[in-house]
Order: sequence, then C-alpha cells, then structure tokens
Amino acid sequence: MGPVTTTHVLDLPTPALVIDSDRMQHNLATMAAAHPGAALRPHVKAHKCTALAAQQAAHGHHSFTCATPLEVLGMARAGLGTDLLLANEVLHPARLEAMAEAQSRARITVAVDSPDTVAAAAAAGLREVIVDVNVGLPRCGCLPGDAGHIAALARAAGMAVRGVMGYEGHLMVVDDADDQRRRVEEAMDRLFAAHDEVGGDVVSAGGTGTYHLHHRVTEVQAGSYALMDSYYARLGHPFVQACHVYGTVVSANAKFAVADVGLKAMGMDHGNPTVELLDGGGADVWFLSDEHVTFVPHTGVLSVGDRVRVVPAHIDPTMAMHATAWVATGHEVIDRWEIDLRNW
Amino acid sequence: MGPVTTTHVLDLPTPALVIDSDRMQHNLATMAAAHPGAALRPHVKAHKCTALAAQQAAHGHHSFTCATPLEVLGMARAGLGTDLLLANEVLHPARLEAMAEAQSRARITVAVDSPDTVAAAAAAGLREVIVDVNVGLPRCGCLPGDAGHIAALARAAGMAVRGVMGYEGHLMVVDDADDQRRRVEEAMDRLFAAHDEVGGDVVSAGGTGTYHLHHRVTEVQAGSYALMDSYYARLGHPFVQACHVYGTVVSANAKFAVADVGLKAMGMDHGNPTVELLDGGGADVWFLSDEHVTFVPHTGVLSVGDRVRVVPAHIDPTMAMHATAWVATGHEVIDRWEIDLRNW
Repeated sequence: MGPVTTTHVLDLPTPALVIDSDRMQHNLATMAAAHPGAALRPHVKAHKCTALAAQQAAHGHHSFTCATPLEVLGMARAGLGTDLLLANEVLHPARLEAMAEAQSRARITVAVDSPDTVAAAAAAGLREVIVDVNVGLPRCGCLPGDAGHIAALARAAGMAVRGVMGYEGHLMVVDDADDQRRRVEEAMDRLFAAHDEVGGDVVSAGGTGTYHLHHRVTEVQAGSYALMDSYYARLGHPFVQACHVYGTVVSANAKFAVADVGLKAMGMDHGNPTVELLDGGGADVWFLSDEHVTFVPHTGVLSVGDRVRVVPAHIDPTMAMHATAWVATGHEVIDRWEIDLRNW
Repeated sequence: MGPVTTTHVLDLPTPALVIDSDRMQHNLATMAAAHPGAALRPHVKAHKCTALAAQQAAHGHHSFTCATPLEVLGMARAGLGTDLLLANEVLHPARLEAMAEAQSRARITVAVDSPDTVAAAAAAGLREVIVDVNVGLPRCGCLPGDAGHIAALARAAGMAVRGVMGYEGHLMVVDDADDQRRRVEEAMDRLFAAHDEVGGDVVSAGGTGTYHLHHRVTEVQAGSYALMDSYYARLGHPFVQACHVYGTVVSANAKFAVADVGLKAMGMDHGNPTVELLDGGGADVWFLSDEHVTFVPHTGVLSVGDRVRVVPAHIDPTMAMHATAWVATGHEVIDRWEIDLRNW
C-alpha cells in the first residue's frame, strides 16, 4: 500500500505483522547463550526474513539452515552466505544449478538422502553435501544403515561430505519431559550411528522444542525461538512471544466482535490463533474466514475501530503469508522489514 | 526463480500451482449459463488474479466482488473496474482514501454495517456504499432492523446507497438439500426485509455452495467455482477441479513417500489436501509440514523424481500463498499468470 509514515503501532494499517524488537532480542540472546556461535545454525524458514537473519548473525551465528533454494539464494544475495545448509532434498536441475552458481559468493551445502538426490546435486555442480538421516520422523532422510552408502556415492561423484543431519520433528512437543529426553537420545543414537559410517565434521539436529536436550550434536537447527507461537509457548521454554498480527475490530455487537485478521494472515495448520485484547484480556475465538476472525472478549464489549493482537498458532507459515514485518519498540514502529524469502 | 522455458507441465519447478485452462473454462461457462452477465459478481478473493478475472469478464461478468482494498485497487489498475464491490468493512483512512482516488478510473462501492464504517467511508471521499446485513453468519453485517438507519446515515453523509448484501456463509455446505434450501430462503427473507428499509437496485448474496438456490437476489457473489477445491467438491455441483499444486517426490521408501508440497503451499484451514498420483491412483495423506507432504500411495511404490498432483482443501488461501499460476492445456503450459492481488 506504499510507504506509511506513522510511527505508532496502533496506526498501522491492518492486518499488520509486528515484531517486538526487545522481545525478539531477548529470544536471540537467550538462545545464543545456550548454543553460542556455530553451535546454533538458525533456521530461516521460521521467519523468511534476511533482516532478521542479520540480527541472528549479530548474536554470533554465521551458519544458517534453509528449507528452499530461494531461501539459500536470498541469504547469499544478502551477504549472509558464510555457511548455508539446505536441509531439504531438491531435484529440479535449474534450482540446483542456481545454487551451484551462488557458490562463488556463498558456502552452500545441500542435503541428500538417496542416489537420485546425490546424482542431481553432482550434475548441477554443487560441491558439498550432508547426508540426511531419518531419526524417527516419517519424512525425508535415509535409514541410518544406508547413510554410509549415500556418502560414498557423493564422494565418488566428486563432492565433499560434511557430515549428517537428522531432524527429530516428531519430538518437538512431548508432554513428559523424561520421555522426551529419552526419545531424543534414541534419535541421536540413530544419527551418530549414521555419522560413524559417513564421517565429516557436522552432526546437525534439533529445533526449538528440543534445543535444551542437545549436548552431543555439533549444531542445533532451531528457528521458531526467535519469534515464537502459541504451539511452542506451551513448552514453558524461556522464549517469549515476539510477533503478533495486529487487527482492527471492523464489526461488533453485544454477542461477538470481528477483526480483520483472517486465515490468509495466519498459518492455520496448528488450529486457531489466540486473540489478545490490548488491556491484557483474552477472548474466545469462534472461527476464522479469509479476512476475519470472529471472537468473544472474556470481559467487556469492543467497539468498531478498537485494535486487537493475534498470536499465531504456527509462526512459520504465518510469516510466509506477509510481505512486510513492522518492527516496534513498545508502541513505536522503528523499522520495516521485507519478508524477502517467501515462495520457492 | 526467473523465467522457465519448459512447456511440459511435468518439467515445472515444484511446488507448482497449475490451472487447467479447459477445466476452468468449463467452470466459467457453467456458472455464466446459470447466472449470466450482471447476475454474477465473481468474487476475486478466491483466486486473487486479475488475469483470471479477465477470463470471467470474457464470459460476460463485468462487476466483481473484492475482499480487500488491494484487490479493489489491483482490479482498477488492471482495467477491470467497471463495478467493484468491496464486500468488507474497512476503517483505515489511507486505504479508504486510496480507493476514493481510484474512483476516477473505476466504480467502487464499499460495504458498511455501522455508523463508524459509514463515517470512515464518507471522510475518505467514497461515493457509493452498500449496506452489509447479517443473515445468520456470525461475522460482519448489521441486524436487518438496523439497515435502514445505516442507509440513512450514509445518505446524510452524501453517499449513494446501492442496496444490500448479505453472505450466508454458514449455509455453503449443508448435508440435507431441502434443509439448505429452506435455510437459504430464511436468510434471504432477512436480507429482503433489510432491503425494504434500505432501497437501491442491488441485492447481493450467495456463493459457490448456494449458487443454485438463488432466484430472488439481483446478483450472486460466487468465487470458488472457477478453480474449486476438495471441500466444495463434495457438493456434487457441475464444477470440476481446475487447479492443482504439482509436487515432486523428493524422498521415498517402501512405507511412504514425501513430496515437496507443504503447508506453505496449501491452505490448511479445511484440513489436509488430497494427493493424486499421475496414473489416477489415490493416496493416504499422513501429514504436512512446512515444505513436505508425507503420504502412502494406495497402489504401487513411488520413486524419487515422480510427480504428484495435490488438490487443495481450500482454494482461496492456497492461491494467496503462491506468486505465480501456470496455465496448462493438457500437459502443455500455455501461460503464466501473476497472483497479483495478494496481501492487503
């Protein structure tokens, strides 16, 4: 909608994705204390924003995890290409070749888990790979027993093998802490068994839900910790909600209110988001439609024009739905960041 | 990722949003036969694509429904501004003023349902409004008994009142056909009661789920019929699936396969999408993560590199997640359309 000169967060046109700078800095500092420097490889898929990645770099992390070729290329273009890992399997020649070309200005490592993905990476001219190992999540990754063979194929094709990665995504949220710890250890046993066959300096795993349980791997791939969402909030980790979508009440009556934050502004795969009133009160969310959330405040009656804050249930897809993030300190808008790593 | 010169749909980089031109034309022609010309006001929120709207105009519809100011402005800019209805309440001055400026090249009517929305529209210099009436869906819209008052406020503020609209969104999918017909009639009774108080030439309602039940209104606001999704498919209406997201199998084993169509490429508010194999076979979808769908083919074993087609459960948010739609006839890619009405 063009540049906006307002500086008060409540004057922003809505729906407005707003990052609270102080809260984000708290999260970045907290994680950097737990996993300093190269011990953390922040996952940019959680925010898709090179300006935010630059903040993570300012906290000492210069290696990053990406989920798409466009994320890799965007990070390289932004001068954040010290050590980029594409933690995903890609087969399309043009996209692999684009990453191979970017090797002139960035270090790029791609995940492989099959003879086909090895062959595609080699054919495109990529120089470094990591072997993706299935550690229990039914998604990508070879069996631990196949990892040595995959590594040998990559080396035979002339590529360097940096090590192994394995994402225990099925263990990010486990109710019983002891059970989670035990199962993460088992998953890492699988990953280290693969590493014994593969070699290399890198053993990469983990996420925001398990960041506190990793002591054996060389690096943790967390991403959501920077901005957080209501799904990860239940873990009780020391990360705070640093991103809200502000909305305006556009219709209201004695029974319910309607704000302009709909399912095109909110990742819905983890269910409904949470509506917060500006006085700190809560609300029951009835449902979201394309451009609206219908809800009932716990106390009081809202008026047309009032603002609300909506907490995403899943931060990653929510970020991907917005073109812009506003950065605020308190109520003051201090910056505008482009969500520049969207799409593929 | 830059221009792609391939013309076979299976050579597209994935995830690839693909519109089947013949199927889309079937849908457009079918709806135009049921509600020709101005009897249909196609809702562009369902596709967010001016190129597709131009196809709807070629089928005789020159009035359009929009859900956001950006959709209105984009349609005006694209020369499709004969009669644009913003079927949504907006309060932000800059966005209302931008639409008021666009009145020099487009006819723009905005929905109002409260004294505040009337005042905001008038202050911005908008010239025409429609009174949005709640016909049973708990979302925007005034009570039928308040519609006359809202209209009087608008006229007193110097704006023309074109009539009433009321969206019976809660009745789009009702299992029992007789029950649906009866409840739609009741909803329209509410709308016409409001119209008696408001006056004007326009009585606008309906959607893809109820398009066949409207005989009293002056226009129907359907949008999803153009491309369809698995949610509306259950209705058994004569519209066919005309949009798929093509994916590539990036990892596979004897138990399951993983394709690169994740929840950042698929609206998830209606649940999981449907995976179709290219041989016509189906699959059980286990889950989606950011960039992946894990599924089990009903028959056979897929190989890395195979393509699949994924049917959205909800077309509107799916379109909003993509920057580009590829248009195909059979297997041949014949055009590339920008999804140019994304965001707000």
